[in-house]
Amino acid sequence: MNYDDVLQHIHAELRPVIGQGRVASYIPELAKVPPHRFGMAVVGIDGSVSTVGDARTPFSIQSISKLFTLVMALRLEGDAVWERVGREPSGTPFNSLVQLEAESGKPRNPFINPGALVCTDILCSRYATPENAVVEFLRPLCRNPGVHWDRAVAASERRTSHRNAAMAHLIKSFGNLRNDVDHVLDAYCRHCAIEMDCVELARAVTFLAHGGSDPASGAQILDASLTKRLNALMLTCGTYDSAGDFAFRVGLPAKSGVGGGIVAVMPGECGVCVWSPGLEPSGNSLAGSLALERFTDLTGRSIF
Amino acid sequence: MNYDDVLQHIHAELRPVIGQGRVASYIPELAKVPPHRFGMAVVGIDGSVSTVGDARTPFSIQSISKLFTLVMALRLEGDAVWERVGREPSGTPFNSLVQLEAESGKPRNPFINPGALVCTDILCSRYATPENAVVEFLRPLCRNPGVHWDRAVAASERRTSHRNAAMAHLIKSFGNLRNDVDHVLDAYCRHCAIEMDCVELARAVTFLAHGGSDPASGAQILDASLTKRLNALMLTCGTYDSAGDFAFRVGLPAKSGVGGGIVAVMPGECGVCVWSPGLEPSGNSLAGSLALERFTDLTGRSIF
Amino acid sequence: MNYDDVLQHIHAELRPVIGQGRVASYIPELAKVPPHRFGMAVVGIDGSVSTVGDARTPFSIQSISKLFTLVMALRLEGDAVWERVGREPSGTPFNSLVQLEAESGKPRNPFINPGALVCTDILCSRYATPENAVVEFLRPLCRNPGVHWDRAVAASERRTSHRNAAMAHLIKSFGNLRNDVDHVLDAYCRHCAIEMDCVELARAVTFLAHGGSDPASGAQILDASLTKRLNALMLTCGTYDSAGDFAFRVGLPAKSGVGGGIVAVMPGECGVCVWSPGLEPSGNSLAGSLALERFTDLTGRSIF
Amino acid sequence: MNYDDVLQHIHAELRPVIGQGRVASYIPELAKVPPHRFGMAVVGIDGSVSTVGDARTPFSIQSISKLFTLVMALRLEGDAVWERVGREPSGTPFNSLVQLEAESGKPRNPFINPGALVCTDILCSRYATPENAVVEFLRPLCRNPGVHWDRAVAASERRTSHRNAAMAHLIKSFGNLRNDVDHVLDAYCRHCAIEMDCVELARAVTFLAHGGSDPASGAQILDASLTKRLNALMLTCGTYDSAGDFAFRVGLPAKSGVGGGIVAVMPGECGVCVWSPGLEPSGNSLAGSLALERFTDLTGRSIF
Repeated sequence: MNYDDVLQHIHAELRPVIGQGRVASYIPELAKVPPHRFGMAVVGIDGSVSTVGDARTPFSIQSISKLFTLVMALRLEGDAVWERVGREPSGTPFNSLVQLEAESGKPRNPFINPGALVCTDILCSRYATPENAVVEFLRPLCRNPGVHWDRAVAASERRTSHRNAAMAHLIKSFGNLRNDVDHVLDAYCRHCAIEMDCVELARAVTFLAHGGSDPASGAQILDASLTKRLNALMLTCGTYDSAGDFAFRVGLPAKSGVGGGIVAVMPGECGVCVWSPGLEPSGNSLAGSLALERFTDLTGRSIF
Repeated sequence: MNYDDVLQHIHAELRPVIGQGRVASYIPELAKVPPHRFGMAVVGIDGSVSTVGDARTPFSIQSISKLFTLVMALRLEGDAVWERVGREPSGTPFNSLVQLEAESGKPRNPFINPGALVCTDILCSRYATPENAVVEFLRPLCRNPGVHWDRAVAASERRTSHRNAAMAHLIKSFGNLRNDVDHVLDAYCRHCAIEMDCVELARAVTFLAHGGSDPASGAQILDASLTKRLNALMLTCGTYDSAGDFAFRVGLPAKSGVGGGIVAVMPGECGVCVWSPGLEPSGNSLAGSLALERFTDLTGRSIF
Repeated sequence: MNYDDVLQHIHAELRPVIGQGRVASYIPELAKVPPHRFGMAVVGIDGSVSTVGDARTPFSIQSISKLFTLVMALRLEGDAVWERVGREPSGTPFNSLVQLEAESGKPRNPFINPGALVCTDILCSRYATPENAVVEFLRPLCRNPGVHWDRAVAASERRTSHRNAAMAHLIKSFGNLRNDVDHVLDAYCRHCAIEMDCVELARAVTFLAHGGSDPASGAQILDASLTKRLNALMLTCGTYDSAGDFAFRVGLPAKSGVGGGIVAVMPGECGVCVWSPGLEPSGNSLAGSLALERFTDLTGRSIF
Repeated sequence: MNYDDVLQHIHAELRPVIGQGRVASYIPELAKVPPHRFGMAVVGIDGSVSTVGDARTPFSIQSISKLFTLVMALRLEGDAVWERVGREPSGTPFNSLVQLEAESGKPRNPFINPGALVCTDILCSRYATPENAVVEFLRPLCRNPGVHWDRAVAASERRTSHRNAAMAHLIKSFGNLRNDVDHVLDAYCRHCAIEMDCVELARAVTFLAHGGSDPASGAQILDASLTKRLNALMLTCGTYDSAGDFAFRVGLPAKSGVGGGIVAVMPGECGVCVWSPGLEPSGNSLAGSLALERFTDLTGRSIF
């Protein structure tokens, strides 16, 4: 299916808001990204690719990596993952320690920082260099053997990760982190620093629109039932503390990152990725959220 | 489409768990319901009806009424409703006052008690007897002109509603309740005390599977876009503090009540209702949740 | 002992700040009080009286009534009071419901609103008109047979007491309120509306500086051990959420009210009362707190 | 003044409860201490010493060190300390992160772990080896040049200090920690591992009963006004989350540690220290709290 016209329509319509919002500034490397960038890509399970704008410009995937960390943890440990991480929306800002403490070190879900730290801990128990394992998982999935993590971003993030360190130590104090805190934080920050473009990310999630099998290679990444469940989890927990509002407006399973990227899944059809660095207060891309909202409005598609 | 075989299969499979769980006991009338009841109904947008078990036994819809209260409030005030009620999962037990206080009297969503109190307040501003307005809204929708609320249940609920009174007064202290607290509580308790059976409830939500129009009468209850959004809201917020888990397991928009009923929507296909009084700790019907989980497994359908 | 010079010195020194702060405005009657009033009185256990400024102008004692409600509850039920109310500082703003909910309806201490509601409930179980019982308790203690509660203030407070109603219903939902919520709120608002002047209030607390016996009449109000303990409780919990800061600066057991009054106790010496309507953000009289701070500085006395 | 008889009376009376309670077990070294130990010492500002039981057995002072860390921080930075640490009771269990997060990394008071971490940070900014600075401060004060910290206890505490690390990183994320987290934690754990006996600790706090000057040497440790204020702070915040109850029962400024020690101050008279390893649920020595309660009962002294 061809979405070129829809994407161009969206791009034109959104011009006035592209550049609005706050670019993430907690690390200098992210703050340097020009706010007026906008790209969007749709990759169908039939292999079709539609793009608009900066769809081929790599950006820092940041929390979108949590989706892939979870997929890898589920492939390694299956349902045992859920003994260490919950499946409920957090209901509080994405980096809060309150809930983590009240719930004895079991993070609410794998898409908030503490949950991703536990999933990263699972990878750290299996791989000597878990950041490479994630990159190697992504390369065939997005068909770019050059996918890598950015050293400057990772190092900068690591230096300023006191809040993540606080969460990791708190989880560790409850016995829900097996590896050394520093080792887990190193891997976590490198996952966040992976760079990909919209086409690559849209392609990397097509298996989620295709019953768990990569439509390009036929490889079964997850089984069909777990794939549906993962999509449900993205819908209820994938977009920080505004998952309810995002589901209301957009109506697609999605995962966002503070780099301005959002991936979304249209089951049975395609993977979508949009990128624009200006963020809403909730941490989701402002123009990106609107673009996805218009996308489901214009195509008349949503899962509801 | 005919779901009779699927429903019978589910009923047979669930026999061992029917009767498990805790029957709501906070009011004597609910505690009297025999725990071993189980009914399920599917009403297609084509008018087809499939049933199993006690699908024609009326029960107390309790919090399922919150869905109808919201629909009526949206019909009256449209998006202005969202200025007074949020759209995010609560992340805390369904009757907590903490979040309400922290968020200045704006309830997190319309499906938790404080949110439903605000929606009821909207109805109280428009109708002298809002409980009759809800009943009159439901009668044509479920094609039973005899739908009514149970006086004993409503009175019993009203007498023990100190926690709801606390929430109503707290909301009022923030200026987000326009009517007299006692009046709002009276109406709220009567909405909860409405009695319907599975077929009636499944039929009453078919418009949500049909772009907002009642497939039987053709009446447009909500517009298509808002209907999709309401389904999204049910998915993220409809089943108390286990909405994430419910979406993960079942994958359908749904609203549950402590009377043991759950309504669910399969967009483009049908409304579903299941009833069994034994509850999970989260407040959702234990056998009912499992029945819906099996329903999506066996039919291979979910929105994801 | 004669404190006239000290009081005049304090009055002169504080002139620039008298009138600063926010006069309580949540009920119209309190908002009407001119902000530039200031009075202070010291009543020795030897009967000596020192005053300055508006020490004979009656004002609304508001939360200072919580001290007398507690004394009366202790006289009625002794240590059984502590099964229903705690003895710890609240650590959160004085009218928060969070802690009350987290601690199952047992208020942290008798000097915050929910704690005083429980003490009032104790009085309601013993007296048909508990507000009269408090007034009758106070009349001989302050040697003014005309002490009364102001009907306009009580009525206004009652009309706007939604937050107190929320707390009372929440306590009731936990079973820690025996009487009808409306009845308890009526009595509570009337206690708050009692009018007294600085000399009367300073005199009314001299028994707390005198081992529990009223130095004027010799009547034993509380036993010596409980009196010391009550003073300790005032120190740790008597001045809303700034009890720690108040103890640090002033170093005397005290109880404040949003009417701008503060009573304090110098064990073995005297009762003190200061009044000035402008409040600090914590709800204590701004000039009143400073006056007491200067009082302990200038006299070199504090309990530490 | 001679307290020998009183101490022997208390010891005899408490025999049945000595050994009750839970010995701190979170580090193996503390768990090894025999629970049936009990010692008590009173050191008058006149130099008199009264003791009973194991008053000369050194024990791990643990959180009592927070008192000395604060005194040293106040000597270095005066009131500037209060810009980084509050003066209010915490109202939540002593190691909670909730409040720290809600209050933007400013700990409630210097006697809870996060507050002591900030005070330690102040010492770390001034001293290369802050643990030695504290020891050197204590040696003349308690007249034992051999006071030292225990390496095994410090190392064990450091290894298991994930919760303290979480707090330190959280404070650092808010910018309220200047030094490296590991450096601060090293120093903090060594302060906790200082070993002293009851006589030494009672002597070390006599300056707090003597207007801030060490009665033995005449050295002015703190000025008189700040000394009174520090005593007030101990009363409202010195005994974990049961400060209110402790003040109610004992009525003296005090600071406790999970090693089972409690120091208390009788202004104008003496310093007191009691030690018994079994703890109440709040973390204070069970027999120690009772001993101090009996001490004020039997001597008829308290500050109230």
